[in-house]
Amino acid sequence: MSSSQVSRRRAIALAGAGVAGVAGAAAIGGALARQDSAPSAAPVADQVAFYGPVQAGIVTPAQDRLHFVAFDVLTKDRDRLIQLLKDWTAAAARMTAGKDAGEVGAVAGILEAPPDDTGEAIGLPAAGLTITIGFGPTLFRDATGKDRFGLAARKPAALADLPHFPGDTIDAALSAGDIGVQACANDPQVAVHAIRNLARIGMGVVSVRWSQLGFGRTSSTSTTQATPRNLFGFKDGTANLKAEETDLLREHLWAATGDGPEWMAGGSYMVTRKIRMLIETWDRTSLGEQEDIVGRTKGEGAPIGQGQEFDEPDLTSTSILADAHVRLAHPTTNSGAHLLRRGYNFVDGSDGLGRLNAGLFFIAYQRDPRTHFVPIQLNLARHDAMNEYLRHVSSGLFACPPGVSGPDDYWGRALFA
Amino acid sequence: MSSSQVSRRRAIALAGAGVAGVAGAAAIGGALARQDSAPSAAPVADQVAFYGPVQAGIVTPAQDRLHFVAFDVLTKDRDRLIQLLKDWTAAAARMTAGKDAGEVGAVAGILEAPPDDTGEAIGLPAAGLTITIGFGPTLFRDATGKDRFGLAARKPAALADLPHFPGDTIDAALSAGDIGVQACANDPQVAVHAIRNLARIGMGVVSVRWSQLGFGRTSSTSTTQATPRNLFGFKDGTANLKAEETDLLREHLWAATGDGPEWMAGGSYMVTRKIRMLIETWDRTSLGEQEDIVGRTKGEGAPIGQGQEFDEPDLTSTSILADAHVRLAHPTTNSGAHLLRRGYNFVDGSDGLGRLNAGLFFIAYQRDPRTHFVPIQLNLARHDAMNEYLRHVSSGLFACPPGVSGPDDYWGRALFA
Repeated sequence: MSSSQVSRRRAIALAGAGVAGVAGAAAIGGALARQDSAPSAAPVADQVAFYGPVQAGIVTPAQDRLHFVAFDVLTKDRDRLIQLLKDWTAAAARMTAGKDAGEVGAVAGILEAPPDDTGEAIGLPAAGLTITIGFGPTLFRDATGKDRFGLAARKPAALADLPHFPGDTIDAALSAGDIGVQACANDPQVAVHAIRNLARIGMGVVSVRWSQLGFGRTSSTSTTQATPRNLFGFKDGTANLKAEETDLLREHLWAATGDGPEWMAGGSYMVTRKIRMLIETWDRTSLGEQEDIVGRTKGEGAPIGQGQEFDEPDLTSTSILADAHVRLAHPTTNSGAHLLRRGYNFVDGSDGLGRLNAGLFFIAYQRDPRTHFVPIQLNLARHDAMNEYLRHVSSGLFACPPGVSGPDDYWGRALFA
Repeated sequence: MSSSQVSRRRAIALAGAGVAGVAGAAAIGGALARQDSAPSAAPVADQVAFYGPVQAGIVTPAQDRLHFVAFDVLTKDRDRLIQLLKDWTAAAARMTAGKDAGEVGAVAGILEAPPDDTGEAIGLPAAGLTITIGFGPTLFRDATGKDRFGLAARKPAALADLPHFPGDTIDAALSAGDIGVQACANDPQVAVHAIRNLARIGMGVVSVRWSQLGFGRTSSTSTTQATPRNLFGFKDGTANLKAEETDLLREHLWAATGDGPEWMAGGSYMVTRKIRMLIETWDRTSLGEQEDIVGRTKGEGAPIGQGQEFDEPDLTSTSILADAHVRLAHPTTNSGAHLLRRGYNFVDGSDGLGRLNAGLFFIAYQRDPRTHFVPIQLNLARHDAMNEYLRHVSSGLFACPPGVSGPDDYWGRALFA
């Protein structure tokens, strides 16, 4: 072992304590001897495959916890950006397999170097971790119209900026971003560890623009999952697109050859909306009014006039009011458009006005936001009775490329090819 | 069923749709018929007893998730405050048993009234929920010295305001509070539901001053628990007080008869500190330096110079540096003082400067902060090498009364008697 493995502070301390020379060498030996062996390989229970034709984390049965981050790209160097995407892809492949972010790991490195994993997930399982990446409009062309990385010609028309919707109170500092990354896992520490290590790897190349924790899923993306509840206390996502509905997924979820640039074939467009819920006001509203607004019963989640959660709502009935959420969001009201939602409940402390800062971090995937999220949200923003209790405070749009085929592939390879 | 059970909006809609009269009556009948039956009683797996000589949530094996809230008391009426404490106690007894917050429940009420539970925990288990209350210094005497509720004479000397510690960057708006409530559970939705319903019940009497979610526990409070990791990637709380150490708990945790006012006998003092960790800087630090700063190895968590996590640190050895955290925080360095810590990792999005806003929400219980937290923190604030990577941004102090003996008792009864 070389003396370069002794840390600066330890060397200084040893000198200061007057134990240089032979005693110092012994102390150094002792110091090195204390170096941990790497912990035994992390268990891989609940592991989701990283490689495949589509990215994991879209139709994967929605995990319990979320950490989402949007990055600004700092570098102007296309090659550095590509290298980062390669490095991130390798780290994501490792972390989703329950391993450390880097090959050396959190504790097995030399003492002189920062570890290539931050360590807070040591001993934790893969926990169903998925890491899903998307590219924002500004990666292709910045606000001044500049083609930053020679990608402007490859920008999908579907990645057009979202319009301002009626009632929007969007905080630009908590919105958009050049790159968005969604980490979902059944253990929040695993999701946070994933985002934190991507930020660490990207230091100097990207910076964190905004980030959001979601503590509980509000959507099912598989028929195997029970429908969870949002912070209005209602089941959310009953009519969501599900992994098992392969025909609907082909029609509504996945971008196909001919839709736009070929690099997006097999990808999907992700819309994020941070939606503050005015829960204190909601909580003063009567049960009947809550159910009228949602258009479903609160307990069972059945459409008004039906008995069971998965019964189809009868939109010809006036029992479901004209401004009920279930009516306005329903595919038949929106030219048949379906979204695949993967939203999460959040509480971000308090708002300084005596209330909890709580709500829904909405995430939806679709084949084309121009035919899906945008018209649906316009319809909701104009008419939904629920708007009285909602504030949209953050908005994001990202083009998520297809999956990574194997260790030689990387996120966005076809975009940069 | 009376027509008063038809909500205003529904009645208006029915009238507007021209279905008054006989058709209207039929629609009303249909509307009422859709009212849910109450869901079957929630399962009570993983239930922690609410009643007992001490409050649950202190020596209870630390649950995975936290929602903490500090309330300002709005009312000037002592009786209204007492009534709120009675109402809260009853709701806490119900919720910790896996039940709705109120007797009627989330969905079984009449349609005209707001439910007495917000519903997002329907179907979720008790999830080990504990709800622990404490009273802040300002409840006894406000900033102007006014005795707000006739409690000034009963204010414990141990509830003296914490001093300003070197390096403190405390945000007053995110600190202190008249009443603090710690909700811990193994499901975050259950913890959030508990705090949200206490806030709902307290509407008009209290308002939310600040609140904090913790996504992962950083301390063990029982020898049955593995030591978790904080966001520095190190095991945290190895030397924490544990539920099984009854002699130490008697000496260091529980306020006793003769310590101060009798209403606190069997209680404990809770200190909260929100500690931002500069994780990006930490992540650029070498493994050796990290271990020097902590005074433990990163993998095993053994004291420097020892082999196993639970080995005693050899504080006579210079291998543990003079400014190592383990040395400065150790009871032998602090006149034998032990704390019982129940901290949680947090990530509150980003800080607007390209970094994650992450760290540790520190919670510690003790018999007297003047002999425990204060001298320990003074020692750490002056000397701890870790300070370079920490910022204390919020501070709270609360006197937690003893437990609630049964349904006729309530939180703080002895204080108000």
